[in-house]
Formats: sequence, C-alpha cells, structure tokens
Amino acid sequence: MRISVEPLRIEPPRGLVLLDQTRLPQDEVWLEISSVEALCEAIQMLRVRGAPLLGLAGACGLGIAAATRGVSAEHLMQSARQLRETRPTAVDLGAAVDAGLAAALSVPEPERLELLWKRAIEFKAQRIAEDEALAAFGAELVPTGAAVLTHCNTGALATGGSGTALGVISRAWDEGRLVRCYATETRPLLQGARLTAWELGRLGIPATLLPDTAAASLIASGTVGLVITGADRIAANGDSANKIGTYGLAAVASRHGVPFIIAAPRSTIDLTCPNGAGIPIEFRSASEVGGFGGQRWAPDGVDAYNPAFDVTPGELIAAIVTESGIAPPPFGPSLRALMSGQ
Amino acid sequence: MRISVEPLRIEPPRGLVLLDQTRLPQDEVWLEISSVEALCEAIQMLRVRGAPLLGLAGACGLGIAAATRGVSAEHLMQSARQLRETRPTAVDLGAAVDAGLAAALSVPEPERLELLWKRAIEFKAQRIAEDEALAAFGAELVPTGAAVLTHCNTGALATGGSGTALGVISRAWDEGRLVRCYATETRPLLQGARLTAWELGRLGIPATLLPDTAAASLIASGTVGLVITGADRIAANGDSANKIGTYGLAAVASRHGVPFIIAAPRSTIDLTCPNGAGIPIEFRSASEVGGFGGQRWAPDGVDAYNPAFDVTPGELIAAIVTESGIAPPPFGPSLRALMSGQ
Repeated sequence: MRISVEPLRIEPPRGLVLLDQTRLPQDEVWLEISSVEALCEAIQMLRVRGAPLLGLAGACGLGIAAATRGVSAEHLMQSARQLRETRPTAVDLGAAVDAGLAAALSVPEPERLELLWKRAIEFKAQRIAEDEALAAFGAELVPTGAAVLTHCNTGALATGGSGTALGVISRAWDEGRLVRCYATETRPLLQGARLTAWELGRLGIPATLLPDTAAASLIASGTVGLVITGADRIAANGDSANKIGTYGLAAVASRHGVPFIIAAPRSTIDLTCPNGAGIPIEFRSASEVGGFGGQRWAPDGVDAYNPAFDVTPGELIAAIVTESGIAPPPFGPSLRALMSGQ
Repeated sequence: MRISVEPLRIEPPRGLVLLDQTRLPQDEVWLEISSVEALCEAIQMLRVRGAPLLGLAGACGLGIAAATRGVSAEHLMQSARQLRETRPTAVDLGAAVDAGLAAALSVPEPERLELLWKRAIEFKAQRIAEDEALAAFGAELVPTGAAVLTHCNTGALATGGSGTALGVISRAWDEGRLVRCYATETRPLLQGARLTAWELGRLGIPATLLPDTAAASLIASGTVGLVITGADRIAANGDSANKIGTYGLAAVASRHGVPFIIAAPRSTIDLTCPNGAGIPIEFRSASEVGGFGGQRWAPDGVDAYNPAFDVTPGELIAAIVTESGIAPPPFGPSLRALMSGQ
C-alpha cells in the first residue's frame, strides 16, 4: 500500500509538522506546529484539510495543548473548545477532540500528556489501516483495463492514509486494473486540479485533468468505466452528500450505464438521518465564485449560489465501499447490516 | 428591445470600434480598428468573439481592406484569406467573408468600397432584427414567475444584437415573466462569469453566478423553471452541439422535469448532418485547464481533456427557438419544416 505523501507528521511531546496544502502544487512548504494557536491558524486557513485528517489534527492539538498549556481539566477544556471552533461544521474534528478530552479527563493529571499523544499516534495508525482495508474492498469494483473518473480530493491529503476514493484508485493501479485516472478541477476551490492531480503525479498514475464542464462529455464518450468519489455524510437510504458537483456526475453516469460508487469511512454513515433531505448543506461565501486566490474574473458584487455539497440519490449509486466491506443496493438493509456487523 | 452593449460600432469608410472583451468585466476598453492587421489581431486574441459577431467583424474587415489596401480582386482575395484564417473553425466568419468577397467581385471596382460597407451595415441590422424575432418567440416559453439557468455567453457580446438565449432572457424580463437569471461560470474560459454576469448587470436583470459544479444542485432544488442555452450546430434530428457543459445541464434538467431549450439562429441548423455523431468537436489546448489568465493552479505539465463543445441529444431538448419560429420535438420533421418554410 503506497501513500502519496504524509501530510501530518507527529513529533511529540511538543508538536507536529504539517504540509501546507494551500501552497500546493507549486510549493511544498512544511510547517512546524508547536502551539495551539499555530494549529488553529493552519486549520482555519485550510493549510490542513479533509475530514479525517482534521480529526487527526484535532487529536494532536490536544497533545500540543497538554505540553504547552498544562494538563488541568480547565486548560484542556479551553483548548478543546478553541480547536473545535476553528471549523464548527467539521464533524471528525469535533469528535476527535471530544474523545481525546474525555479520555484525558478520565486519568490522573500526570498521565494525560502521554495518553493524548499515544491516542494521536494510534488515531493515525488506525486511519492508515482503515484506508487500506477500504481500498482493498473498493479495488475489486474497478473493472480490469478501466479508466476511472473522480471528483475533488480524497487522497492522503484528505485522510492522512492512502485516502478513500483515491486510495481505491491507487490500489487498483497497483493491482494492474487501472489504466488512467481522470480528475475534475472541482470548482470553486479546485481541490482536483491543485491536490488530486499532484497526488496522482506522486503515485505515478497516468492522470488527466478536466474542467468540471467536460465530465458529461467524457462519460458520454465511453472512456471511463467507473466514477468514484468520497462522501461527507451518507443517509440510511444511501442518499449521499459529497462535494458540490458529485450529483451531476452520478446523474450522467447513470444515463450511460457507467457505475457510480462511493468510498467513505463507516463514520460517514448516519443511520439517524433517513434520507438526503435531512442532511444540512453548508453554503459558503460568494467570494469563492467568480475568482480564485487573488484573481477576480466576475463583476464586483455579483450574487452567487455556492453550496459546498450536493446530495446524490441512493438510486444512482452502485455501491458504497467502507473499511468494513461493500454495501450494495438496496442501501436501507445493506447499510444497517454493515453498521451492526461491528 | 434592449441591447446590453454595442460591442462593434461601424465607422466607415476606414474602420470600426470594438469593445475589448478580454478586458471585461474589469475594464471597458474600446479599440479603434482601422487596419486588417489590427482586426485580425483582435479576432485571434478573442477581443471580439461569438459566432454571429465574428460574422459581422468579417464583413467589416472586407470594408477596411477595400479602404486601406485597394479594391482589386487580388487585394480583396488576399485580405479575405487573411481574415478567414484568424479562426479557421468559425463558420459564420468564413461565410460572411466569402459572401462579401463574392458580392464585391460581382461589381466594378469603383463600387466595391461602398458596397462592402453597405453590406456590413445591413448585416448588423439583420442580426439585430433576427435576434429580436428569436427573443419574441423564445420569451413565450418562459413560464411567468420563473427563474432561468443559462450557460456560457449568448448575449450582445456574442451576436451584436440582443443575443440568442440571453436575448430570450432579456425579453422575458422586459415582459415581466422572469424573476432571476442564474449563470454558470463556464470553465475553462469563464464566459458566464466574465461576460454574461456583466451583461445581466447592464440590463438590470437580477443575476446569480454559480460554479459549474453547482448547477445540478440548483436544478434539483426546484429553483429554476427553465434551462436555456445557445447552440453552435444543430443536427437534423435535433442533437445539438454547444459549449462544453451544456449536455450535463440538459441531463440533470431532464431528471427533474425542468424544460431545456435551445435558442439559436437558423444558420446553426445543419440538415446535412443526420445526428450528433456527425458533428466535429474542437479540442482545445491543455493550457486552458488547470489555470486562468496568468494564474496556474494545477501541477505543471499535467495532461488535460478539453473539448470546446459537447452534444446534447435531441431527446433532452424541449424546443429549439430560431428567428423563424419554434421547432418542437420530434425535431426531424419540425426542423425540416422550419428550414423549408423560408
């Protein structure tokens, strides 16, 4: 199992080293992080991103807090709040911070520093193992000799392991099944063009970038045998929220009989949410539309529609791949079985 | 009938004044063009663009050639060749230049200069009249109280009149039918963000810009009652080639029962082409993907898939609107009737 890059290196007792994802692909800048403030800045500025990787960053953040601010309940709780508030909608970040805090408060103060770093190291190892398990299941679904199309970034830069959808792609390449990976640019934040294209290059996988507008044409041309993405939240009936643009890919793939599959950790499956209508969608700033970075190309002040996610109906999804196995349609029973199995 | 801007002003006998579309929306720069060389540069650099507007530019180019280089057959033919070669795939440009050349060569030399400018002025007036007729037919198809979604730029900046799809939108707004126009950014060249958003602002039409990735989410939300685009070539069965990204919009609109219609001049209809498979698709430079203008965001040297157009199957199109009327499905008979009617 190959990992394109290790975007977060744990260096206890005082800190960690982060790859600044905002500088990719032009520059590989590594940031030494040894304060809670520096980590919070890196999270807020998206220098570190990706739901699972943010969980790891949060776990490490508590270790840094214990080393630099002290291990009293009051200090740790204050640091936990500060870390959570950097990205309030990042479920994995909040969950990892809450779990670390609870574990630390359950042991005497002298044991807390070591415990928090031990948990962070275990968190990372578990992420790598789970990505590997997911990739092994998912690669079975890649037809031999196929090109695949993916969206956004779901690789090492998002998880700290081999990734979810990109982990499957990497494994399929290593197994000799895959011939090429097509990656969408993924407007507005261009994670496909900036991050996925960079990771594919490092993994030595033949890669082709396309404007989001060209995906339907590519699928219609018969070039891709599979479309695979991650997911941010999966409802009990299989309806799946993922990066904006995913639903359009799934709709076109369906018209052409090209399987669309999702690769996501079990933690993404939310059986308390009956269907996609119950998934809250984050709307982001209009400033992300009509420009990128410092460059503007739209008229000043134009209104924008900028949801971060869309919902792909379960009926368009051929399989949901997790670290515990593959859920096939119909997803109501298969997701329940998957979640109760472990 | 309102026109958002007059992108090409004819000033015989020596030249014309062009709005530099590459500088929009930040700057309104007007270029005085009084040589064939200057016009060719403007066409090649996309300072003037849009299939119908290029036809007008070509007609004017022959007037400039006659005024500055002389009216001999040899001089005019050489200038015509030079103008055509600026954008070899632009059908309207080549057709307008060829027609102007043939007309000029059919009269004695002393009459040629005046004839060429007279034809250019008539060409522009006809474009404006045809856009107005198309808009009147098309506006009938906009449900009262609807928001519409459009793609790329099909306004005055593309035709020199009120536009095709954008002309319909403008007319529907003037008639009080329309409540808002949603415009896609239209990667990779961002004509929606740069040009359509600017034209909508000048027309006073409430406008919302969206990343191409967000169009499927918008349609699924039930916000838009109609999707309308232009077309570059329409086959005899209604299959329509248009700006890359159109097919994906039509496919998603179809899933949600939202009508998708095309607004295009009759000159776009090619009855000699039986279906979409016969429409040649231009592939453009990889450099347009993974960046914009001087800014790059993808890794250097990454391969790209960059078709300029895709083909929307006629089965997804609810109506094709032209200056002569509306063709409904099935398009085989309706397009034949439309083309033989005049």
